[in-house]
Amino acid sequence: MAKLVECVPNFSEGINKEVIEKIVDEVRKVEGVKLLDYSSDTDHNRTVVTFIGNPEAVKVAAFNLTKKASELIDMAVHKGGHPRMGATDVVPFIPISDVTMDECVEIAREVGKRIGEELNIPVYLYENAATRPERTNLADVRKGQYEGFFEKIKDENWKPDFGPCEMNVKSGATAVGARAPLVAFNVNLGTSNIEIADKIAKTVRHIGGGLRFVKAMGVKLEERNIVQVSMNLTNYEKTAVYRAFEMVKMEAQRYGVPVVGSEVIGLLPMKALIDCAEYYLQIENFSMDQILEKRIME
Amino acid sequence: MAKLVECVPNFSEGINKEVIEKIVDEVRKVEGVKLLDYSSDTDHNRTVVTFIGNPEAVKVAAFNLTKKASELIDMAVHKGGHPRMGATDVVPFIPISDVTMDECVEIAREVGKRIGEELNIPVYLYENAATRPERTNLADVRKGQYEGFFEKIKDENWKPDFGPCEMNVKSGATAVGARAPLVAFNVNLGTSNIEIADKIAKTVRHIGGGLRFVKAMGVKLEERNIVQVSMNLTNYEKTAVYRAFEMVKMEAQRYGVPVVGSEVIGLLPMKALIDCAEYYLQIENFSMDQILEKRIME
Repeated sequence: MAKLVECVPNFSEGINKEVIEKIVDEVRKVEGVKLLDYSSDTDHNRTVVTFIGNPEAVKVAAFNLTKKASELIDMAVHKGGHPRMGATDVVPFIPISDVTMDECVEIAREVGKRIGEELNIPVYLYENAATRPERTNLADVRKGQYEGFFEKIKDENWKPDFGPCEMNVKSGATAVGARAPLVAFNVNLGTSNIEIADKIAKTVRHIGGGLRFVKAMGVKLEERNIVQVSMNLTNYEKTAVYRAFEMVKMEAQRYGVPVVGSEVIGLLPMKALIDCAEYYLQIENFSMDQILEKRIME
Repeated sequence: MAKLVECVPNFSEGINKEVIEKIVDEVRKVEGVKLLDYSSDTDHNRTVVTFIGNPEAVKVAAFNLTKKASELIDMAVHKGGHPRMGATDVVPFIPISDVTMDECVEIAREVGKRIGEELNIPVYLYENAATRPERTNLADVRKGQYEGFFEKIKDENWKPDFGPCEMNVKSGATAVGARAPLVAFNVNLGTSNIEIADKIAKTVRHIGGGLRFVKAMGVKLEERNIVQVSMNLTNYEKTAVYRAFEMVKMEAQRYGVPVVGSEVIGLLPMKALIDCAEYYLQIENFSMDQILEKRIME
């Protein structure tokens, strides 16, 4: 099987097209890696890059991108609406196919070490790669942002995992991590009552006592005059898409509201949907090796 | 998107391992093609080869395999339990990914023409590639088998589509065609009564007034003491897997019999199962381009 890792680095430049292209070029240049998407937000002054490939190639592309960003971006003059702490702000590695989370944690460590040692940038490992529980959540790591890190880094609790124990003035600090692929999945309800969507969202999501890997909120679809439970499934292997779907449906029943449709936003690994087919069709002993397209990727 | 065509040639040698390996080697040698499987049946004295790849490479591999079989197999002395008319008996081309049926018909014509002209073997186009309605069904084309073809080929109605108008004594004749991928899908019932499985099979299958692209029969699973509706779905894009599944379930209800599971035998294109997830999750406006693995195959 072909090992596939996804990487979604965010860097702190969303306006200067020349700089953005030069940084993204570092991904295009690496053989074995495919650039899937990059999109810049001028208000956030930030660009999100998505690429995928074999583990070795992805490591090279992630490092090269970070290096180029450290050369072209000066955090001392950066302004933007999105929380950020570095020129390359976050670098998550995501297992897609025939790669374990542990392998992605190892990739995060290797790339983090190179960024720290070769680029002289303080690096914090986060999510599944975190070395301490309080570094799991990216928001906690990034708290204080670039400006606050000159103090925060002196705190023994916030000693970087790799790199210098003082802030890099030009490049800031970088969070490198491993996480499960995120599936953005929304369920549409046959009502215009936003309160119902909100109530269901609160029930199915983790913080409300619902499913472990679901974040959810109610959203109004003005044009269609219906509402939607908008979800982020942060680990589809543990909290399957069909389970979130069926739970929304079940909760909607108490209001006599039907599910009228759903939508998948953006990309997702085929297994997230194949798992649903397996459930509904009650397939026994299915193996992903039975998928023709997987065989050609061997 | 990467264009993927599957080819499943059957050749008339299932005993002599040396000959079998030499013929299969012709597939292994071609770059851009992946050998997925080959299995020989000694009673049938026949081997089924499965490979997949880009259209150009698949054409080359299919022709080279047929050429090698024409050199190493002598139909004048061939015996076997399975109906056959040539050294390479049938060569179907199957659209898997980003290839239309029309493209596979064109491939069948090109490869058929080469087999006819360069190898001097009479070629009949069948299934979706057939040039006359009575040649659609492979069984009709092959009727009379190798031995009977010396007469059959003289009939104006059975003039070959390509190649000589007389039989090739050593290699026989070859059927070359295009067809949809076949999905072998069985639904297990919570009863040991084979009559119920038989009755349901007769209802869901095409010849019994059921779904257009379903062949079905009842099968007893002795070890588990249950029965099964064993189906071949001959066009999953037109008769979706979930539709066959739900129809079996619906018919089982009249006997008060539950569906206790199902199984997919062998390989299938990912879309056959993704389509089912789309149905059950009620996903709107889904595109196969949202599948990460498809993007890497571009």
